[in-house]
Amino acid sequence: MRIRRLCVLGVGLIGGSLARALREADAVGEVVGCGRGLANLERAQQLGVVDRINQDPSEAVRGADMVLIAVPLFAIRGVMEAIAPALSHEAVITDAGSAKGSVVADARAVLGDHLSRFVPGHPVAGTEKSGVEASFSELFIDRKVILTPIPETSAEAYERVADMWRVAGADVHEMPVVDHDRILAATSHLPHMLAYTLVNSLCRMDDSREIFRYAAGGFADFTRIASSSPEMWHDIVMCNKEAVLRALTIFQEDLNALIELLRQGRGDQVRELFERAKEARDQYAQELTAAGSKRA
Amino acid sequence: MRIRRLCVLGVGLIGGSLARALREADAVGEVVGCGRGLANLERAQQLGVVDRINQDPSEAVRGADMVLIAVPLFAIRGVMEAIAPALSHEAVITDAGSAKGSVVADARAVLGDHLSRFVPGHPVAGTEKSGVEASFSELFIDRKVILTPIPETSAEAYERVADMWRVAGADVHEMPVVDHDRILAATSHLPHMLAYTLVNSLCRMDDSREIFRYAAGGFADFTRIASSSPEMWHDIVMCNKEAVLRALTIFQEDLNALIELLRQGRGDQVRELFERAKEARDQYAQELTAAGSKRA
Repeated sequence: MRIRRLCVLGVGLIGGSLARALREADAVGEVVGCGRGLANLERAQQLGVVDRINQDPSEAVRGADMVLIAVPLFAIRGVMEAIAPALSHEAVITDAGSAKGSVVADARAVLGDHLSRFVPGHPVAGTEKSGVEASFSELFIDRKVILTPIPETSAEAYERVADMWRVAGADVHEMPVVDHDRILAATSHLPHMLAYTLVNSLCRMDDSREIFRYAAGGFADFTRIASSSPEMWHDIVMCNKEAVLRALTIFQEDLNALIELLRQGRGDQVRELFERAKEARDQYAQELTAAGSKRA
Repeated sequence: MRIRRLCVLGVGLIGGSLARALREADAVGEVVGCGRGLANLERAQQLGVVDRINQDPSEAVRGADMVLIAVPLFAIRGVMEAIAPALSHEAVITDAGSAKGSVVADARAVLGDHLSRFVPGHPVAGTEKSGVEASFSELFIDRKVILTPIPETSAEAYERVADMWRVAGADVHEMPVVDHDRILAATSHLPHMLAYTLVNSLCRMDDSREIFRYAAGGFADFTRIASSSPEMWHDIVMCNKEAVLRALTIFQEDLNALIELLRQGRGDQVRELFERAKEARDQYAQELTAAGSKRA
């Protein structure tokens, strides 16, 4: 696996971390960075994450054999439109969007002849931090990267992208677009909605300052994801709206049922709900541990 | 601060950790352990957490000058009934219950002459694990312990209990019972309800096995508290039902509002909600860091 020239569109936590990982593995010749924020781009160059910067996407991708689009979901179509006329006919294109249906629709609408070399992807990794400053080469080690190829995707392009993520330490999985969007709505998009909502609920309670003051460690863990980028998460839930709404509705039903049980003082049934959840959560933690993660 | 004989009723994570901390500080002469599970008690003795064990509460408290009741909330009244006739007239009694209104009601109903030496307390510390095996002497370092004295509580008893927790490394706060129950309902009881409910929601989705398989680090953090003891949490929410229901209702309203905004495609308003939450969460994390916690 060797990339001659990688163009990273959006040198943030994900784009920056991938560039760092590939450089450390000596798997890339040159990295060109492109993005809206000049200060962040210049910082990426200072940090040695990219070799060159260019704020014009059509110029940035020129001569690249690998292109990573790692911008917020709502910006992806514009980036694709800008780069399509300038892409070389060898260039493999992938993205890092957390929802895949909308990205595939964008690609079909915009990429034209390049569509067969587009491999939709989603590295299931990240922290609540954003920007190149937060990037680090180990981000993808033992993390899942889900690729969601479409019928048009060439096997060669798929393998190039899968190899790239493997070099960065990731565990590459393949999945249909709709499965990806349904599964991530449940495990990632829904918890983010709940964390944001919980913090907002606490803010509008009486004495919210006192409330935050006495919040303990469990609360810090539980709400960490509410410090994630609002722009990114706005884009994710709007782009994956149907699946997110289905997940939210299931949760809403379960929450309403719990509230009703509590109101009626049905303690035994409340305990059963907790027992069932603990069993499933412990099982999940065991599997995580068995898979070698330290974050169960 | 020196305790001649400490009786720990319920030698679990909390009771065991306090005993360990006081022993390490050489602040206690003898520790007597009492509890329902003989295997756990014997393990506590093997581990050196307690010197003696006795499964009869009325015998276990004999001659103790400090008594910690660290059993699930629903078991507190029974323990108080059992020990009241056997308590010495010097014994200071405290508890570690996560809700205080119900404990105070129990104490008023049962403790009789000993009420003035009862100091309701709540160490805001813990992990998702239970039992003496999970206990460790550093558990309370820099953690808050909230004491909620009632008008009958003597100043001397209060100071003895406050000193004991300070020796264990805790930061002692005083608060009225109702404030405690309202604040903890928001920051602790509500998040636990959400974590349990989220795990149950995921379990009843199609392909729930696939869903858990692709859950990432944020999900592990978010749902860690769903591995907490179902019995303990049943007791907490039933004992603090009114405050928990008020917190749940506020959350329910906010969740319904978010779902409605999403359904209507009101992206700008969704983003504003996320921005507001991120701001509050970042502020909270800053204050945690300023207070010296590493768990922001």
